[in-house]
Amino acid sequence: MADDVELGAAEAEDLALRACLGAGANPASARSLVDATVSAARFGPSAVGFPHMVDYLNSFREGRINGDPAPVATRPFPAYLACDADRGIAQLGFDRAFQDFVAAARSFGIALFTQKNSYTTGELGYYVRRLALEGLSGLAATNANAMVVAKAGGSAVYSTNPIAFGFPLGNGTTPLIIDQSSSATAYVNIVTAAAEGRSIPKGWAVDAQGADTQDPEKALTGALLPFGGRKGANVALLVEMLSAGLSGGSWSLDTPSFRSGDASPAVGLTVIAMMPDPAGSDHVARAHDQIRRLEQHGVHIPGFSGKPHHRPSEQPLRMSRAVFDAICRFVSN
Amino acid sequence: MADDVELGAAEAEDLALRACLGAGANPASARSLVDATVSAARFGPSAVGFPHMVDYLNSFREGRINGDPAPVATRPFPAYLACDADRGIAQLGFDRAFQDFVAAARSFGIALFTQKNSYTTGELGYYVRRLALEGLSGLAATNANAMVVAKAGGSAVYSTNPIAFGFPLGNGTTPLIIDQSSSATAYVNIVTAAAEGRSIPKGWAVDAQGADTQDPEKALTGALLPFGGRKGANVALLVEMLSAGLSGGSWSLDTPSFRSGDASPAVGLTVIAMMPDPAGSDHVARAHDQIRRLEQHGVHIPGFSGKPHHRPSEQPLRMSRAVFDAICRFVSN
Repeated sequence: MADDVELGAAEAEDLALRACLGAGANPASARSLVDATVSAARFGPSAVGFPHMVDYLNSFREGRINGDPAPVATRPFPAYLACDADRGIAQLGFDRAFQDFVAAARSFGIALFTQKNSYTTGELGYYVRRLALEGLSGLAATNANAMVVAKAGGSAVYSTNPIAFGFPLGNGTTPLIIDQSSSATAYVNIVTAAAEGRSIPKGWAVDAQGADTQDPEKALTGALLPFGGRKGANVALLVEMLSAGLSGGSWSLDTPSFRSGDASPAVGLTVIAMMPDPAGSDHVARAHDQIRRLEQHGVHIPGFSGKPHHRPSEQPLRMSRAVFDAICRFVSN
Repeated sequence: MADDVELGAAEAEDLALRACLGAGANPASARSLVDATVSAARFGPSAVGFPHMVDYLNSFREGRINGDPAPVATRPFPAYLACDADRGIAQLGFDRAFQDFVAAARSFGIALFTQKNSYTTGELGYYVRRLALEGLSGLAATNANAMVVAKAGGSAVYSTNPIAFGFPLGNGTTPLIIDQSSSATAYVNIVTAAAEGRSIPKGWAVDAQGADTQDPEKALTGALLPFGGRKGANVALLVEMLSAGLSGGSWSLDTPSFRSGDASPAVGLTVIAMMPDPAGSDHVARAHDQIRRLEQHGVHIPGFSGKPHHRPSEQPLRMSRAVFDAICRFVSN
């Protein structure tokens, strides 16, 4: 796009780091957030890369994120790491636990990481991608403030409750990463439709009274619908229990907005790491072949699965001018 | 129903055990299958109780199940039990590993059970219900022969690929159990619509050419659609990789029918067991309250969650006359 800004990786990271520090993040928080942001910008949906960093920057400044947290990790069981994020970013607690988490999965065959009391997690695929790049299969779930009804006629009880799954596909190739919300669409798509005066498809949202609507303005005062009806609502329930239930994080019903006010969302995150290839197995090579085979059957495989995995420094990073300007405003001079 | 047969629990179990033995199951296989069948009849969808046992009985007799298997369990890591079911029923391998699996979850905080080379698993909720009754949260995935397309226009690449999740809700109450397929509907619903000459809803199935159809006869020669479009197809992919990928079981594309021929489906099953309440936490009590709260918000909670958990002997069991007769035919005199 003509209005995009293209930056070398080092330059983009430096800008983002300085913006985080300017917004009130301590150096460790800034480093963790920039790593996650660059990973999302390269491998995730672009909206959860630099555009979402602006949400973080505003939240550092407005008190929704503790920029200088003291995450506390405990180990209630040998393969179970439990973190209290102290209202900081989720990525910092995960980074602090990461080496122990990976080592536990390699030692015990499977390991569990739960975290409560963090800001919303950003791109959920990031957590399982980190594991997959270490050769581990991963499953992750998290929640946020309620904006999704279980069915039309009800009130919002779930966040978009995403689930993510990763499976390594062999050395040098990008792992399979599935990362999707339990809602029929993302909230931003309602906002965009409203801004552009377009109607929205049936099945995306309800109005303030819980009735189906195709009017995005009414949807903005209402709530999103789960994808796939009752089964999608059950996926949202599974995610709620796996994330908030297992971690002790806030239920979606009790979670303040990640975009306004000065309270921490204090949400839950659960990540499971598994050894995909016990000695003597060929599970990873077999998975790689099966993903190729599914593609030959016309199946859409999410993301870059099985493509060469570029190192972050190899390609420049792009963001819109508006996002670039928003980030620059946080850089202290 | 007037045409139902009602049996006391002991009488039903005795009949079912003798039918299994008559069909060619060894005593251990018969015991494992009857336990799972009675559990499904009481707590699962009724179709996967006694009606599905008839599939097992036919499969013992016709060679799709090895009635006298020697399941081999290995422990590649301390918290990872891997079983080769030797073409027997999935429940036998699970039963053999169960005590070690539960003990591993309690010792390490999380444990992994994978199994390959079994007949199709029956009610998937059973495996996580077993864990939940031991106070453990569980997640399970399995597959079977391909009968679901990723999207209209494609060929069948997945089975109905179910996922199940359990979370205990406290002593004496039935745990939360979510157990659902990744397909828009069950195959049996297509069969029933065809028998009754009814059209089927849009979104359930495609014909042999992969085109959307509402004609159940055409659907019978075609395939099912995933629930919820692309996101449901991604859930099916997640289940495929979590089950067959992690266990080394057959991919759905390579799995023979569980209802015809004499080959074992040889499918995969993966079950994860997690400690929901590390010392000092109130996660189980909190989950119980949240389930009640979601119900107050009008959310449909699957199954009997949170209701008193009756012991199996307390209530009689019902089955249709046709199923009763079919089971009786396998009893040797």
